[in-house]
Amino acid sequence: MSFIPRSLEKLVAELSKLPSVGGKSANRLAFFLSNNPELSGQLSAALSDCANQIRQCSNCFFIAESDKCLICQDSRRDLTQICIVEKPADLIAIEQANVFKGCYHVLNALWAPLKGQGPEQMNIEHLLERVAENNVQEIIIATGSTVEGDATALYLAKVFAEKGLKTTRLAQGLPKGGDLEYLDDVTLTRALSGRTEV
Amino acid sequence: MSFIPRSLEKLVAELSKLPSVGGKSANRLAFFLSNNPELSGQLSAALSDCANQIRQCSNCFFIAESDKCLICQDSRRDLTQICIVEKPADLIAIEQANVFKGCYHVLNALWAPLKGQGPEQMNIEHLLERVAENNVQEIIIATGSTVEGDATALYLAKVFAEKGLKTTRLAQGLPKGGDLEYLDDVTLTRALSGRTEV
Repeated sequence: MSFIPRSLEKLVAELSKLPSVGGKSANRLAFFLSNNPELSGQLSAALSDCANQIRQCSNCFFIAESDKCLICQDSRRDLTQICIVEKPADLIAIEQANVFKGCYHVLNALWAPLKGQGPEQMNIEHLLERVAENNVQEIIIATGSTVEGDATALYLAKVFAEKGLKTTRLAQGLPKGGDLEYLDDVTLTRALSGRTEV
Repeated sequence: MSFIPRSLEKLVAELSKLPSVGGKSANRLAFFLSNNPELSGQLSAALSDCANQIRQCSNCFFIAESDKCLICQDSRRDLTQICIVEKPADLIAIEQANVFKGCYHVLNALWAPLKGQGPEQMNIEHLLERVAENNVQEIIIATGSTVEGDATALYLAKVFAEKGLKTTRLAQGLPKGGDLEYLDDVTLTRALSGRTEV
């Protein structure tokens, strides 16, 4: 569109690359931002800071600003329990529930051959070194309940079984507020086979 | 959340200020961006360019990079027709329909006393100067069909009537694909009173 200033067109193009931001949303955001130069400036600075400072923790592969993330730097965490999650957002969900005081290992990939992802992206060697160093007592596999999450969990369970490590996986069953009438067969089957004594 | 790097928290806070971006979306966007430093850098540059370069056209108050916007610079536009719109996005909608070859005046405000907006924000004096300079034949009021859009249209129509100018307003009636069964009373009343001979 030849009547739109070049810098605004460029901003729309960049905003369109964000997940769940389509053409209309990108236009609306760009207009809002072009009317708010102060917010644009702050957002621009925040983005550039983030791009320059954020890296992966060398220990657990969570996001960090220095060599180790804030969780790995925290001396109060229990080093003998390691929880394996797929991505940083999963780690944050567990932290927000405030029920786990151990450490993490972020895979940043799942077993997904079609996406070219396999064990070599998951930094398992490094995890096994940590296990040996810290005398780890339990590994909790907290991948999601998807095809890829299940495949990854099975693979990891096999690797740790070979080393004789205690490995557990998050319980599968009814979510809070779950109504049996609307649940799928797989969830019901898993809830039934994993039933606990009351 | 003390375990999240400061620069990422800052980015989430800035993203949350955008319209229709809530806390969860801001988190998701921030993770996506922190994993894509290249895109973050480009977006940061686009934002800062936009903040530095975008201003209002001194003639029609549309967005521009220089003193006049690209439409006011275009010598092929008909200077004797001026279309009045509320905001830049409305102008773009009309341009995309590719049916109008005149010029524009962007109000950047509507008659909305509760928001502290009134005629003094609409740059009407400047519009009247343009009308006198360019021997304007018709002013088309293209504000939306809302309470504020209607109030603004009435006010503007009165101002131009006093100057003896030909003033028109966009037709109100059935939208394309409109089914009479589902249309509201006001639209039907306006469609009926504005009926045209076939």
